[in-house]
Amino acid sequence: MEGKYTIYKRKMNYYETDQMGIIHHSNYIRLFEEARLDIMDKSGINYADIEEMGIIIPVMSVDCKYLIPLYYNDNIEIHSCVTKFDGIKMELSYEIYKEGSKEACTKGHTGHCFLNKDMKPFRMKKLYPGLYSKLKEMAV
Amino acid sequence: MEGKYTIYKRKMNYYETDQMGIIHHSNYIRLFEEARLDIMDKSGINYADIEEMGIIIPVMSVDCKYLIPLYYNDNIEIHSCVTKFDGIKMELSYEIYKEGSKEACTKGHTGHCFLNKDMKPFRMKKLYPGLYSKLKEMAV
Amino acid sequence: MEGKYTIYKRKMNYYETDQMGIIHHSNYIRLFEEARLDIMDKSGINYADIEEMGIIIPVMSVDCKYLIPLYYNDNIEIHSCVTKFDGIKMELSYEIYKEGSKEACTKGHTGHCFLNKDMKPFRMKKLYPGLYSKLKEMAV
Amino acid sequence: MEGKYTIYKRKMNYYETDQMGIIHHSNYIRLFEEARLDIMDKSGINYADIEEMGIIIPVMSVDCKYLIPLYYNDNIEIHSCVTKFDGIKMELSYEIYKEGSKEACTKGHTGHCFLNKDMKPFRMKKLYPGLYSKLKEMAV
Repeated sequence: MEGKYTIYKRKMNYYETDQMGIIHHSNYIRLFEEARLDIMDKSGINYADIEEMGIIIPVMSVDCKYLIPLYYNDNIEIHSCVTKFDGIKMELSYEIYKEGSKEACTKGHTGHCFLNKDMKPFRMKKLYPGLYSKLKEMAV
Repeated sequence: MEGKYTIYKRKMNYYETDQMGIIHHSNYIRLFEEARLDIMDKSGINYADIEEMGIIIPVMSVDCKYLIPLYYNDNIEIHSCVTKFDGIKMELSYEIYKEGSKEACTKGHTGHCFLNKDMKPFRMKKLYPGLYSKLKEMAV
Repeated sequence: MEGKYTIYKRKMNYYETDQMGIIHHSNYIRLFEEARLDIMDKSGINYADIEEMGIIIPVMSVDCKYLIPLYYNDNIEIHSCVTKFDGIKMELSYEIYKEGSKEACTKGHTGHCFLNKDMKPFRMKKLYPGLYSKLKEMAV
Repeated sequence: MEGKYTIYKRKMNYYETDQMGIIHHSNYIRLFEEARLDIMDKSGINYADIEEMGIIIPVMSVDCKYLIPLYYNDNIEIHSCVTKFDGIKMELSYEIYKEGSKEACTKGHTGHCFLNKDMKPFRMKKLYPGLYSKLKEMAV
């Protein structure tokens, strides 16, 4: 991953495997979520606080390429960055590596929007300038 | 299972397996939930409506004995019944069978309480006599 | 979805929700798997038997667009079809509908390859002509 | 928890919540697994190696009491210990705490047996004296 990115680390769990003996492909989507909330957290934006403010950031789209399988007990690093943010939409890019390897095992993206409690979009720049600035700063 | 019970059927999914080649033990707790909401549904108590009324029925305790493993593609039957209900607490009993077999693969129980939106107990018999009657009728 | 497709039905479970009050986005990837194994089953290809033969069909890629959220208790239909099969790769397309609605809530695709137990590709047309024919017939 | 115990820490994930706004009760069973494999790891017994040796340690029973709910973003500590080990069966005890609190949110137990690849019990003390000693040492 080029440019600035954040690194999130953890170990793969036994219950994340399937009978193929590898991590089930649906769990990578959950790894992306962990990395995404971590990157926000490290930028001073705690998602729990965001929801407290009455804002949700649902996932609009996801894509993932599975290049090398992950196994139980693998120590992984997720490199992630915000590739787009304009106050209305946000996009992130993710790459998963086994610790110590330079070859990406997985590459993916997610797309998001920002909604208030009535599930409606709103003008973040005007209504939440502080949040807007922090998210803007996060973007590559 | 003796006395009256309700039967809930479904097929085990691939993503519910782990690398031991069997259904991961945590998923049986989710099967119990499916059976529990089904038994309520069949008694005219839809849990979505219950939450709409401002009532939640959290799980206070669970226990499970794993006797015979379940595999991907197994067609199962969950026999379940309400063994206790007094307006304040509720207990259920569950047994999981492979379709066509009379030997229980799994046996378990869950314990529940009833809370309002402020996470406080309330007098169901007085406040929701209709719900109280339906739940009372469900109990063995 | 145009052309021929298979319909797989089920109800959304409580444990599939998250605190946003909707079905968590990772679970749709599992729904795709359920629909995929169902479409194969209905074409006379049971995935349990496939693995018994020493063949696995891992997921190489997945993408998903979340258009309308699904909720607990929703009865859904997944329309799915095999859009490509050449003996080496396979692609499927999925659309999720709430029962009775004609508006797709979710659209997605998965890409797959065929590997033997040593995680190597093999010539299906030559080695497993029966399976090859069945899969070829499944494709739109 | 009295006596010697091991501490395992992690943060609760968003995808582990349900629409009640709390961590879904099935996920605690997975937390127990994480703590169990961690306690073994810290005693020099990596479960991946155990399976490599042809041994599996399935779960025979589980019980859990939910005393105080856990929420997304909670930093937790799981205190766990092996309460019984005789070469044939193993039992563990678990308590989950929010970081900094002395009040247990969850208490639970799991029971296990040791099987070889043919799903048969075997004499660990005789066949795997090294493993037997390490597990014996782990027990309180």
